[in-house]
Amino acid sequence: MPKKISKLKIIPLGGLNEIGKNMTVFEYRDDIIVVDCGLSFPEDEMLGIDVVIPDITYLLKNKEKVKGIVLTHGHEDHIGALPYVLNKINVPIYGTKLTLGLVENKLKEHRMINSINLNVVKPGDKITLGKFNIEFIKTSHSIPDAVSLAIDTPVGKVIHTGDFKIDFTPIDGEMINLHRFAELGKEGVLALLADSTNVERTGYTMSERTVGETFENIFSNAKGRIIVATFASNVHRIQQIINAAYRFNRKIAVSGRSMVNVVNVAIDLGYLNIPTGMLIDINDLNRYPDNEIVVITTGSQGEPMSALSRMASSEHKKMEILPGDLVILSSSPIPGNEKTVAKVINLLFEKGANVIYESLADVHVSGHACQEELKLMHSLVKPKFFIPVHGEYRHLRQHATLAESLGMSKENIFVAENGNIIEISKDSASITGSVVSGNILVDGLGVGDVGNIVLRDRKHLSEDGLMVVVVTISKEDGSIMAGPDIISRGFVYVRESEDLMEGARSVVKEALQKCEENSIKEWATLKSAIKETLKGYLYQKTKRRPMILPIIMEV
Amino acid sequence: MPKKISKLKIIPLGGLNEIGKNMTVFEYRDDIIVVDCGLSFPEDEMLGIDVVIPDITYLLKNKEKVKGIVLTHGHEDHIGALPYVLNKINVPIYGTKLTLGLVENKLKEHRMINSINLNVVKPGDKITLGKFNIEFIKTSHSIPDAVSLAIDTPVGKVIHTGDFKIDFTPIDGEMINLHRFAELGKEGVLALLADSTNVERTGYTMSERTVGETFENIFSNAKGRIIVATFASNVHRIQQIINAAYRFNRKIAVSGRSMVNVVNVAIDLGYLNIPTGMLIDINDLNRYPDNEIVVITTGSQGEPMSALSRMASSEHKKMEILPGDLVILSSSPIPGNEKTVAKVINLLFEKGANVIYESLADVHVSGHACQEELKLMHSLVKPKFFIPVHGEYRHLRQHATLAESLGMSKENIFVAENGNIIEISKDSASITGSVVSGNILVDGLGVGDVGNIVLRDRKHLSEDGLMVVVVTISKEDGSIMAGPDIISRGFVYVRESEDLMEGARSVVKEALQKCEENSIKEWATLKSAIKETLKGYLYQKTKRRPMILPIIMEV
Repeated sequence: MPKKISKLKIIPLGGLNEIGKNMTVFEYRDDIIVVDCGLSFPEDEMLGIDVVIPDITYLLKNKEKVKGIVLTHGHEDHIGALPYVLNKINVPIYGTKLTLGLVENKLKEHRMINSINLNVVKPGDKITLGKFNIEFIKTSHSIPDAVSLAIDTPVGKVIHTGDFKIDFTPIDGEMINLHRFAELGKEGVLALLADSTNVERTGYTMSERTVGETFENIFSNAKGRIIVATFASNVHRIQQIINAAYRFNRKIAVSGRSMVNVVNVAIDLGYLNIPTGMLIDINDLNRYPDNEIVVITTGSQGEPMSALSRMASSEHKKMEILPGDLVILSSSPIPGNEKTVAKVINLLFEKGANVIYESLADVHVSGHACQEELKLMHSLVKPKFFIPVHGEYRHLRQHATLAESLGMSKENIFVAENGNIIEISKDSASITGSVVSGNILVDGLGVGDVGNIVLRDRKHLSEDGLMVVVVTISKEDGSIMAGPDIISRGFVYVRESEDLMEGARSVVKEALQKCEENSIKEWATLKSAIKETLKGYLYQKTKRRPMILPIIMEV
Repeated sequence: MPKKISKLKIIPLGGLNEIGKNMTVFEYRDDIIVVDCGLSFPEDEMLGIDVVIPDITYLLKNKEKVKGIVLTHGHEDHIGALPYVLNKINVPIYGTKLTLGLVENKLKEHRMINSINLNVVKPGDKITLGKFNIEFIKTSHSIPDAVSLAIDTPVGKVIHTGDFKIDFTPIDGEMINLHRFAELGKEGVLALLADSTNVERTGYTMSERTVGETFENIFSNAKGRIIVATFASNVHRIQQIINAAYRFNRKIAVSGRSMVNVVNVAIDLGYLNIPTGMLIDINDLNRYPDNEIVVITTGSQGEPMSALSRMASSEHKKMEILPGDLVILSSSPIPGNEKTVAKVINLLFEKGANVIYESLADVHVSGHACQEELKLMHSLVKPKFFIPVHGEYRHLRQHATLAESLGMSKENIFVAENGNIIEISKDSASITGSVVSGNILVDGLGVGDVGNIVLRDRKHLSEDGLMVVVVTISKEDGSIMAGPDIISRGFVYVRESEDLMEGARSVVKEALQKCEENSIKEWATLKSAIKETLKGYLYQKTKRRPMILPIIMEV
């Protein structure tokens, strides 16, 4: 009997129809590898949620198959779910030096560093996990040490780009390894999974180096202190700030927890070059004249608790924004953050600072490939099958269109959903089914204990507040012993609404009396009588629908 | 004794340090006129709020002085607060035909149309209100019939631009009256108040006509139905959609309450030209082939209840998005709406539609002047004093910088705040004080009954939910007669957290017993014992802080 040839399964557990929470499963027979393990930040309707992680039910069911987690780079949307996932399924982790440096930091915070098997790789390395041979390929992104993966499987080679851009003049001098992509393309690539984030943008993403040029221009004209806010993980950006500061004879101080963390990791691992004596403590700022100071800080997204926001609102312990300061927001608002960013810019201006941000100067470039870069990648790799990843539906769909425009046939492109099983053989591919997938909400210590009902209640409470009605009734005859007492929160100013509250008490009392007259004693009926009566009364008076919580006590 | 010369007071009650809620008071001795009466939409932290209107305490205190409200155009941020303000202070309203048509509609909805004195003016008209002579000057904006105001006062002429752009090829053929601005500038203008919305943008705002050209291109290639979403009030945009539809032999149907309203008003008043037989009922869509249909709809901001969102999520009664449909979002996301717009775009693509939006084609232009237009306005008007209006602090500040760059001296520019009193004489101006100003929150029928405490509670409830603890104690000896009962909402899935809830009951019981042992009977002390104990317990177990509401009943 001839040996049955198995198919490769590619199962995205996150990163499709969303930006963030990237995680892709590769499965061949008894072997599974996982690429990335990211989190996403809560949507507006996920009230009170801290972070969102992928549902890994499928991995837990196939625990013994999982050979390891391979990381493409150290951004939260690629490593952020590790503490939660490793807590349930402890497998070896593979990643480049900086990536694992950031992972280590994260695991330390979760007090789980000692139990985890971390394996440093470098671009060009190959590792074997079960039936998978994985090669790490140098790429460019808005964090150093990012890699694409060439995954050699029994049915053929699959390339996962990870997040990438094509930067011909990268800060560390090491370009994305286009030669290797070309070589692999020539040898034959079965499938490509590629970053879709910037597919809506025409042309090319500018080189990170252009931001350095802008910094030099701005620094050369600055007379007072310079404060630059950027993403902590953008080590190349930080290096460029340091370079500009060095050139104009300024010291560097660092502010913000994650910025301090990343800068320390980057210095330790050799990713940041700071001339001796240049890095000063933020406590020592006043020992230097204003024109010899640069402060690098977090808060470029306007996060209310970040160092920059605290500086702008005089809540930072170590420094405050003063007239004459120059603040640079070296970033672009992540969709959804536009208003918080605008708020911090307004605050900074109000403090008398001059503020430079993306709409005023070229102080930021993206880390993701635009259309022409994507076309280059597709053209080099020449995959048989294509799966657009890392994007909302519109991005995936447009990435598919881009691939078609390059001559790919529609049938070979798979715009998939999280949980889809894409089965691939040497010459065919199709979506054959689905596994459990979705959002697990993390709120404080709770992982998954907040779901739709809890969120629905939070939304209701947030919009109209609540009214609690308590009545104590007699065990014997059901007569009212105390109350109804009414307490409201988040509904109206009680002091200015005494008539309304008094009216509410009256209608509840009447409703209860009517129940008593009709000898109704079932609690459920009493409660719904209270609820309906009060609801009608309040809506008529206020056109609002607070949550109504009737509570009956029995003595 | 020589007659004392009075000063003109300009008091912005809204529109400074914010986008929206525009309202400016002009006062000279016993006369007050009010320019615009707008609302703004709630900020993220204003949970459950419908709209925000200006605090008009100052006007109510000076009721007898107020001679009228003069409107520059019919957008919500200029007319939206009228029903609330007119309810407290009924004065004559002055505005152009379309503006008052929209006001009428609004007043009808509030059932107050009969009691209001509406006066139609047209560009070029002059009216006298007390000591003020007001001239209406034709301008361009994203709604027809917008005017700037030249207000002749006893100390000199003041120009308020209202919202404006300079469109050399407007759809209605009537250009902004640059000649009149030039003439007034030559005669001498005491002060200019000018729109700052787009001051961060270099160059010129494109003409509305360019959007029409894009429509023609898109329509000429379309094979199926075309659905265009835009702002209902952008009548010129709607006219261009109609023109393109006419050219390519398509009928027009209209969807969405505000779109239907505005189109009706615009047709009645002669602002829309629709060839006979071209406008069809949305119920009759299926009588025509797909390539003869254009639907104009609301929902270009991704509003979840709008017609477009309902079409995209199959909740619209009359039509649904189908594969082959072409949807054009002829708009730009208002800051804060980026994610809801992205959501509707994703939904539309998922339905199989092709979607064209701002980042893909020139299907929208702004209604506000960019830097070069602002420079032209300043240069024509040549005011002695300048007050930037309509913008967040950064916009006002940058508008001031722009004026300085044109040669104005810093001392003659006033970056003011809502409530500031700017006193102006023939040759001097200064901020001399402040009046009450601020946000009045409208929630349902309540105007101003939701304030900071209520909002703080809503935020708390929205993030961590609540826990109600009820205990019934004896009047005689304070012993526990029933409870403690614990009810939670928006906190955890109760079914999956029974241990937690049981633990909560135990710690509360213990706390109450301790109180009893120590003969503590004061309700306040009992309540705080419950609160603190439970708070500590829940935070330790979940790292969350739900609102805790202890209620004590006495029998």
